[in-house]
Amino acid sequence: MRIALAQLNIHIGNFEGNVRKMLDAIETARAQRADLICFSELATCGYPPRDFLEFSDFIAQAEKAISILATAARGIAIVVGSPSPNPVPEGKDLFNSAYFLSEGTVKHITHKTLLPTYDIFDEDRYFEPGNSFSVVEFKGTRIAVTVCEDIWNINNENPLYAVCPLDELMPQQPDLILNLSASPFDTHHAAHRREILAANALRYELPIVYVNHVGAQTELIFDGGSMVMGSDGQLKAELPFFQEHIETFDIQKLNEGEEVKSREGTPISRVHDALILGVRDYFRKLGLSRAIVGLSGGIDSAVVAVLAARALGPENLRVVLLPSPFSSDHSIHDALQLADNLGIRHDILSISETYETILKSLHPLFENQPFGLAEENIQARIRGLLLMAISNKFGPILLNTTNKSEMAVGYGTLYGDMCGGLSVIGDVYKTDVYRLATYMNAELSIIPSNILSKPPSAELRPDQKDIDSLPPYDILDAILFEYIENRKGPSEIATLGFDPALIQRVLKLVNTNEFKRYQAAPVLRVSSKAFGMGRRMPIVGKYLS
Amino acid sequence: MRIALAQLNIHIGNFEGNVRKMLDAIETARAQRADLICFSELATCGYPPRDFLEFSDFIAQAEKAISILATAARGIAIVVGSPSPNPVPEGKDLFNSAYFLSEGTVKHITHKTLLPTYDIFDEDRYFEPGNSFSVVEFKGTRIAVTVCEDIWNINNENPLYAVCPLDELMPQQPDLILNLSASPFDTHHAAHRREILAANALRYELPIVYVNHVGAQTELIFDGGSMVMGSDGQLKAELPFFQEHIETFDIQKLNEGEEVKSREGTPISRVHDALILGVRDYFRKLGLSRAIVGLSGGIDSAVVAVLAARALGPENLRVVLLPSPFSSDHSIHDALQLADNLGIRHDILSISETYETILKSLHPLFENQPFGLAEENIQARIRGLLLMAISNKFGPILLNTTNKSEMAVGYGTLYGDMCGGLSVIGDVYKTDVYRLATYMNAELSIIPSNILSKPPSAELRPDQKDIDSLPPYDILDAILFEYIENRKGPSEIATLGFDPALIQRVLKLVNTNEFKRYQAAPVLRVSSKAFGMGRRMPIVGKYLS
Repeated sequence: MRIALAQLNIHIGNFEGNVRKMLDAIETARAQRADLICFSELATCGYPPRDFLEFSDFIAQAEKAISILATAARGIAIVVGSPSPNPVPEGKDLFNSAYFLSEGTVKHITHKTLLPTYDIFDEDRYFEPGNSFSVVEFKGTRIAVTVCEDIWNINNENPLYAVCPLDELMPQQPDLILNLSASPFDTHHAAHRREILAANALRYELPIVYVNHVGAQTELIFDGGSMVMGSDGQLKAELPFFQEHIETFDIQKLNEGEEVKSREGTPISRVHDALILGVRDYFRKLGLSRAIVGLSGGIDSAVVAVLAARALGPENLRVVLLPSPFSSDHSIHDALQLADNLGIRHDILSISETYETILKSLHPLFENQPFGLAEENIQARIRGLLLMAISNKFGPILLNTTNKSEMAVGYGTLYGDMCGGLSVIGDVYKTDVYRLATYMNAELSIIPSNILSKPPSAELRPDQKDIDSLPPYDILDAILFEYIENRKGPSEIATLGFDPALIQRVLKLVNTNEFKRYQAAPVLRVSSKAFGMGRRMPIVGKYLS
Repeated sequence: MRIALAQLNIHIGNFEGNVRKMLDAIETARAQRADLICFSELATCGYPPRDFLEFSDFIAQAEKAISILATAARGIAIVVGSPSPNPVPEGKDLFNSAYFLSEGTVKHITHKTLLPTYDIFDEDRYFEPGNSFSVVEFKGTRIAVTVCEDIWNINNENPLYAVCPLDELMPQQPDLILNLSASPFDTHHAAHRREILAANALRYELPIVYVNHVGAQTELIFDGGSMVMGSDGQLKAELPFFQEHIETFDIQKLNEGEEVKSREGTPISRVHDALILGVRDYFRKLGLSRAIVGLSGGIDSAVVAVLAARALGPENLRVVLLPSPFSSDHSIHDALQLADNLGIRHDILSISETYETILKSLHPLFENQPFGLAEENIQARIRGLLLMAISNKFGPILLNTTNKSEMAVGYGTLYGDMCGGLSVIGDVYKTDVYRLATYMNAELSIIPSNILSKPPSAELRPDQKDIDSLPPYDILDAILFEYIENRKGPSEIATLGFDPALIQRVLKLVNTNEFKRYQAAPVLRVSSKAFGMGRRMPIVGKYLS
C-alpha cells in the first residue's frame, strides 16, 4: 500500500482555498503513484473552527467540500477530516470525523471518540464522541482509521478517558493504523508525540501513518512533522517541521526498513521556527504583508524585529524609535544598529513634545502631584498611539513585543506597550528571550551584543531598571513556571526552596493582572500553558490576591 | 419541613468571605426556625471558578470550607454547592456537587449529572458527570437534590443530554425537589426558568425549592429570583431579583397555598437592574469604589454615566469632556447638562492642542497624506490616553461605553474609545440603548432630551454621522441579532427580507473585526449571546469575510 501523507497548511473557513489545495495534493499523490492520500484532522474547514461550527451554513460548506473531494477520489482513495452531522437528535449536532472517500463516494466515516476538552481544546462543546468502531478494508489492507486524541489513551491509562479506540478496533485485525491529527506545537510536544506513536505501534505490532496539520491559526501553531512509525516502535519516515510537504511511502517496505532520526532540532530552534511560522501565517491568512515594530533598544523588541524580518522579509518590516527624555543614548544607538543589521526602514519620532503637551493639558488636574505611574504610562501610551497612527495611515500591522514574564506580572502598560495585533513572544519567558537572541546570533551577530548584555529597563523614569520593581528574572521565571505551567499552589512552590513571601507577591501579581491580560493581543503559543484561550481565569475573584 | 432559601452574593475564590457570609445566613435561618438551609451551586468557591479548579490548593480550600460548614450544621441541615474530588483516577478530577451536611458531618453528596458545555459554560472541562442517583431522607422527608442543569432535561427531550436525573430519582419516591443553581441572567431567562420549573413540578407532582446565585462575576450577572414552585406548577414564593435575600418557608403549607405573581419586571427594567448590579459588583469585588467615564454628549456615554452613578453613587463617579475641533457645541452643552442632572464632578480637557502636536510629530511621515481614519483614531486615542492618565493618577476605573452594534461591526477605535476596565453596554444593541435611556427618563428626565433625539455621530471629522458609514441602526441591529443571537447564515437571513448585499457587508464587518473584540474589555452579559467567553471565534479565518 502506497500512502501519500499530505501535510498541508489549511486556512480556517477558507473552503474554496482548502479544497483547491487538496485537489492539487491529490494530483501530486497520483504522480507519486499513491494508492491513498491522507489529509489532517478537520482539513476541509481548518482546526480549530471554534463557534463557526454552530452555523449550519458553515457545516453545509464542509459537506460540499467533501462531495467535491469524493468526485476526485478515482483511482486513488482519500482520507480527510471534516465535521459530519449527527443524524440523531440526542447529543451534540456534530462528529469530528475522518471521511474515507473512494471511487467517487463516501466509503466510510470514522468519528473521533476521545474529545479533548482542556487547555486550548473545547471539543465537548461541539462534538459527540464516536462509539462504534470498524476498520476500513481497502485493496486488501485493513486500515484502523483514528483521529488525533484517539491514539492518546494507551492501555486505557489516560485518566481523562474511559475508552481506548484502538483496543476496540483490534478484534477486527487491522494491518495498519492511520491517524489524522491537528496537534498544536509546544516546545516539547514533538518528542511526546513520537513516544505515544511508538508505544501504540509496539502495543499493537502495527505501523502507524500519522498526518499532522502544519501552519498557524491565530495563536495556535501546528508544526507538521507527520511520520510513519514502524511496528517495531522505530521512526521510519518523518516529514519536515513547519512547512507543507506531500510524500508517498510504500508502508510495508518502509516498515521493514531502517530507523530514521527525527529532525526536530533543539528546543530553542523549534521555538524560533514556530514563531516565524506563527507571524507569517497571521499575516498571510489575513491577506496582509507588512508589519511595524516599536524599537526600544531593549531585547524584547529586538527579538521580535528579527523574527518579523525573517517571517515577512526585511522589505515588509519597518521600525520606529520613539525616544523620550528618559531614553538613554545607548538605547537609540543599539536600536539603530539593529535596524541597520536587518536592513529595514527605520524612523525616529521623539515623544518629548507630545509628552509635554499632554502634561500641560492635564496640569489643571495634576498640579502638585508627584511624578508617578500615570506619567510613565503616558509615555508608553504615546508610543502606542504613534505606532497605531502609522499603522492606520500606511497599513503595516503593529506587532506586540511583550514577553511572558511581563504579561504574567502585569509589567506593561495597557493601551501602551501592550498594543499590537499579535503578541509574538507573549509565551516566551524573559530568560528564554535571551536564549532566543543568543540562538539568533549564533551564525551572525544580528542583535548588537550591548542589547544582550545591558540590564533590562523600561526607561520610563531616570535610571529605572526592571530589577527595581521585579525579582531577578531567573527567579521570577522559575516561580511563574511552577504556577502557570505546573499549576502548583504557593505551599507546593515553597517546597522547591523559594521564599514564601516572594511567592505570595508573585502569585498575587499574576492574579491581580488578569484584567490586563484579558485585553492583550492573541499570543503565539509555544509552551504547554500559554496566556489566552488555554488559560481561563476569572478577573473578579479573590484567590491568592 | 421549613427550608431557608439563602440567595447570597458569593465571591469567586474568597473562601473566607463566603464562609463568613454563609455562617451568618445559617444564624438567620435558625432565627427563622428553619430545618434546613439551602445555598446555591458552588457556593463555597463561587461560580464560575474557571481554571482555578485546576489548582489542588483551591480545591483544598473548598474542602476546608465544607468542614467548617459541617461543624455549623447542628440543629439545622445545610445543603451547599462545592467541588468535590473524584475518588477514582478515571475521568475528570472533580464533581460539581451538592453537599448535604447534618449533625456535624457530611450526610450525602449529590453530583451534578448534566454538565453544560456551550455558550459561557465549560463544565466538561472540569467535571465528571454524576451517574448514581439517590434521594436524601431528612426528618421524614425524602429530598431529591439536584444541581442547576439537572432539571433542564424534562422527559429527556433536551437533545444535549441522554439522562434525566429526576426520572432516575423518582423510583425512590421523593417528597420534594431541591435545586441549587448558578443560572446567569439574560433578558428572557427568568421566564424560561419558571417554565422549566413548572414543567418539572407538574411532571413529577412535587414542589421544587430553587435557590439561585445572585451577584455578578466579571461579565456574568446572576439575578437571584430563587423560588418555590408548587406541585401544581404554580409559583408559590419568589425571592427578589438582583439582591441578596434569606427567607424560610414551610414548604408543605406553601405548596397548598395561593399562587404569587413574579416580580421580574419588564425586559428593559431587568437589563437596567442587571447592568447596575454588574457594575457595582465589578467594583466591590475588586475592592474599588470609583469610576470615570468620558462623556461625549452622545447617548452611549450618557447611559453608562447614569448606570454608573446608580451603581456606585454620584459621589463615586467623575466624568471628563474631551472636546476636539470637530465636537459640536450641543455635544458639550448636553454633556454638561447630564453631569449637572446627575450631580457628578466633571472636568473639561480639550484635546485640540495634543492633537495638533501629534500631527506635527507625524508630519515628516504624514505630509501630503489626506485626512483619514488615522487622524480620526488619533483623536479617539488621545481621549483614551487622557482618561487612563486620570485613572492612573487618582484611581477611578475607566468604564467603557461601546455598545453591542459598534462592537459587532468594529465601529470603534482600539485603544481609543474601546479603552476601559469593563464594558457596561457592550451587550446592548444601539436600538436598546435608546430604550434604556427612555426607561431611565420615565420618572425624571435625567438624560437631556437632545441626547435622545439627535442623530448618532462619532464627531471625528466635520459633520460626520454614523449613518454615513453604517446602515440605519434598526436594520443593522436586526441583521446582527439574526447572525449573533440566532446564528443564522447569510441565506437564512435573506429569507427574512433583508438585502443580500447588505447582509454580506454586515456579516463581513462582524467577522473581520474579531481582532478588535479580542482586545475589548469584558462585557456585562444581558443577552443569550454576548461577545466574550460565550462566543469563541477564530481571528484568522476566511469565512464570510
